[in-house]
Amino acid sequence: MDDKSLRIDEASIVFSEKPELTEPVLIEGLPGVGNVGKLAAEHLIDEIGATKFADIYSTDFPPQVFVNDDGTVKLARNELYYCKGPTDLVILTGDYQGLSTRGQYILVQTVLDLVQTYGTRRIYTLGGYGVGVEVDEPTVTGAATHLELVEEHEQYGIVFKDKAGGGIVGASGLLLGIGTMMDMEGVCLMGETSGYMVDPGSAREVLKTLASILDIDIGFAKLEEKAEEISKIAQRIKQLEESGGSDKEAGDLNYIG
Amino acid sequence: MDDKSLRIDEASIVFSEKPELTEPVLIEGLPGVGNVGKLAAEHLIDEIGATKFADIYSTDFPPQVFVNDDGTVKLARNELYYCKGPTDLVILTGDYQGLSTRGQYILVQTVLDLVQTYGTRRIYTLGGYGVGVEVDEPTVTGAATHLELVEEHEQYGIVFKDKAGGGIVGASGLLLGIGTMMDMEGVCLMGETSGYMVDPGSAREVLKTLASILDIDIGFAKLEEKAEEISKIAQRIKQLEESGGSDKEAGDLNYIG
Amino acid sequence: MDDKSLRIDEASIVFSEKPELTEPVLIEGLPGVGNVGKLAAEHLIDEIGATKFADIYSTDFPPQVFVNDDGTVKLARNELYYCKGPTDLVILTGDYQGLSTRGQYILVQTVLDLVQTYGTRRIYTLGGYGVGVEVDEPTVTGAATHLELVEEHEQYGIVFKDKAGGGIVGASGLLLGIGTMMDMEGVCLMGETSGYMVDPGSAREVLKTLASILDIDIGFAKLEEKAEEISKIAQRIKQLEESGGSDKEAGDLNYIG
Amino acid sequence: MDDKSLRIDEASIVFSEKPELTEPVLIEGLPGVGNVGKLAAEHLIDEIGATKFADIYSTDFPPQVFVNDDGTVKLARNELYYCKGPTDLVILTGDYQGLSTRGQYILVQTVLDLVQTYGTRRIYTLGGYGVGVEVDEPTVTGAATHLELVEEHEQYGIVFKDKAGGGIVGASGLLLGIGTMMDMEGVCLMGETSGYMVDPGSAREVLKTLASILDIDIGFAKLEEKAEEISKIAQRIKQLEESGGSDKEAGDLNYIG
Repeated sequence: MDDKSLRIDEASIVFSEKPELTEPVLIEGLPGVGNVGKLAAEHLIDEIGATKFADIYSTDFPPQVFVNDDGTVKLARNELYYCKGPTDLVILTGDYQGLSTRGQYILVQTVLDLVQTYGTRRIYTLGGYGVGVEVDEPTVTGAATHLELVEEHEQYGIVFKDKAGGGIVGASGLLLGIGTMMDMEGVCLMGETSGYMVDPGSAREVLKTLASILDIDIGFAKLEEKAEEISKIAQRIKQLEESGGSDKEAGDLNYIG
Repeated sequence: MDDKSLRIDEASIVFSEKPELTEPVLIEGLPGVGNVGKLAAEHLIDEIGATKFADIYSTDFPPQVFVNDDGTVKLARNELYYCKGPTDLVILTGDYQGLSTRGQYILVQTVLDLVQTYGTRRIYTLGGYGVGVEVDEPTVTGAATHLELVEEHEQYGIVFKDKAGGGIVGASGLLLGIGTMMDMEGVCLMGETSGYMVDPGSAREVLKTLASILDIDIGFAKLEEKAEEISKIAQRIKQLEESGGSDKEAGDLNYIG
Repeated sequence: MDDKSLRIDEASIVFSEKPELTEPVLIEGLPGVGNVGKLAAEHLIDEIGATKFADIYSTDFPPQVFVNDDGTVKLARNELYYCKGPTDLVILTGDYQGLSTRGQYILVQTVLDLVQTYGTRRIYTLGGYGVGVEVDEPTVTGAATHLELVEEHEQYGIVFKDKAGGGIVGASGLLLGIGTMMDMEGVCLMGETSGYMVDPGSAREVLKTLASILDIDIGFAKLEEKAEEISKIAQRIKQLEESGGSDKEAGDLNYIG
Repeated sequence: MDDKSLRIDEASIVFSEKPELTEPVLIEGLPGVGNVGKLAAEHLIDEIGATKFADIYSTDFPPQVFVNDDGTVKLARNELYYCKGPTDLVILTGDYQGLSTRGQYILVQTVLDLVQTYGTRRIYTLGGYGVGVEVDEPTVTGAATHLELVEEHEQYGIVFKDKAGGGIVGASGLLLGIGTMMDMEGVCLMGETSGYMVDPGSAREVLKTLASILDIDIGFAKLEEKAEEISKIAQRIKQLEESGGSDKEAGDLNYIG
């Protein structure tokens, strides 16, 4: 970093590179329900080999460092990646969302201000949609800034109107709401998820839908693996619960309750 | 919106129209006890065909968008309507009040600054007054900025002094308190309500009183309908509770407790 | 008020009069343990006939108005009174302390900035000192900004060093702590109190001590009355508790528990 | 203090002396788990006879004064000490860390801005590492800003990588995280501790490691004494618990439970 006098404020961007981008599509995947958005964004970054070009620090992120595997530390941050292609992409991910109401607004506006300088017009925000029960084949629900986008995206199997009357909390919602005011348009893609565990399976469905929209070709092997792992863990928990809960013949419960 | 560089701050007004108004009376109905104020303000807007002319955004509103029935999203906001007539009106409503103490002050001051430019002298704030028990014929309680207003308004059947010693929290109170400091005067109209459910019946009484004060002629059919609906729901809940609670002969309760 | 464009900020003073004062002693009594400080300050204001000269508003006070007995409203505030005499006095009282940590600092600094313009050198802050048990003859405990003040004030029967190792929270503490940094000096007078009820008896002891220090002659009849009233209420509560707790012979408790 | 017009803000430094220092190493020990960091920093200050040169006040510290043994008061603060030697040292300690997320960032940045003017390049932050069980021989765990520092410090018996995947919360973490951005480097030394009591024994191990790194020769008698005292108290608590828990023969527990 060149500037030794940086002071972290509500949203401070530190660039490691200043890429030239043409109307990049902004994609957001930050922590949230089932960690669906973050898992999808990280997998996308890996698969397309996106390059990190900036860190975002904030006095609204937890006041802490994270200890890496090699014993070094990393300050709480969000990260911006880019990938040039037929359609340029900017991807926002990270380990945190702002902790305060005001911080969330300022972080989102700072990101939008930046991508506006690149000419961004289109935004996709990725997240999970908690339904409270286990989901075998998660659908992808959507919400959009404009009615034309709703119609344009129904062809990709996205179910709109399902969340009508509800709200989209955090960066995934604010980027669309504030983006609209900055002449941008966008869609939030939400993967169905139980809400009880991290859900790579739901992230896969969300990312498949996004890949199809952006017409990019990526693999899903790593997400599949993670999904299977989680599925096995869930299975084991379920078995334990069932053996405990249904073992009425043995009358074992008498010893507990 | 013309200005692409808007940054939402503690209270940012975005105009869709700049109406010419003559000393408009400011009417406020935001969410609160029994949602009485908001229901009354929205019904008034519908009945007199008021026109929206501005949105108020705030870093103190929940960081979220609301999903509309058609799958599009709407950023958390307050809304300002106007209606020209013998007496011009400006109506403030919305889905939220500021989340923080400071935010409440700043939002109220921003609205007062705006209406002061139109020459506003008179304010009516609408709300509910929770009494903790079901109310069949809700009275309208009042509090005013000046003693002359107390006397002037008692003719409309408003009971003043009932809340003496209590407080009026949120925009309904602050608009009067801060308005006084800006040479405005006003009255808070509070409809009696249980405080347990949304209360269109209480909103009707508040709005009837306001219509009588402003000498405007509006219908109440929609509020009546909503009130009946809520009344039926309340009735059903009561019956369920009573059948559960009084059915001692059958001894059914033994199976529960 | 002349200035219609006032915006309430973290601490905004609105003057109704600009008295000429000579090095006034600042006396503070705001709500706190047993309401001792506020009761003492208000009684002092009544007895010496002090004149209100300013209101302090703050975005850190509860966002509400208080409804007076006549149906008018009053915005949450602090109040400044003065009294000219052999020693001029400025008295700070009110219904609230700042709600946030930062607000407390800013309110206190704003008051100190004001009295510094009058040449204030000496501060007395009044409060209660909760001991958790009923106190028949409350002592007055003290803490001071300088060791000379400790020595100077021990002659008035104030017990210093009793609170050693503890803290004085809120305006009573901050006025001394920050005052020191502004070349002022001061003493906090804390009346022993149970901490369970408002305690006019403790306020009387604190005020007697202060009157003796300031060499002013005031009556205590009203505080005595209030103290007796509270004492009777406490007595009744005690009797009820005792009859309930010890009435084992009558076996009455079976009807309750 | 010269400046009577100081207003305490988020981080306000008041100097009692302006020492000339050459690239001092910054050492931080503030309250935290087991109070390990603060105990270590205070002991170091005593042993090397460091001189206080500045107080740091903050609207983010508790709004209170602390009552000293002599009846005088002290405003909540942090303190900076220095000691000139083969390697100059600046030591940061105090009774509080910032209460809010944002305050923590600003306090840390203010300290770093100051020591940067002295040419500081190296930082050591001291703290405890709670393990939830009693520890007889506490190890010292570390985390560093750069991989070279990890390697450089393993010779002192510091266990790196043990906290991998975890976080370091508060000033100990932020000083490293933000320091890195200001071209500084540093290590956090964390003493194993149960986390249930203040732990002078863990502080001794941390300080021994630091003394060895800085090649300074200090005594540990006072920390030993405190450690023994705490150890005795812990012993007594344990005995009480055990006698209570294992005294089955006497059947005494029947009288309690």
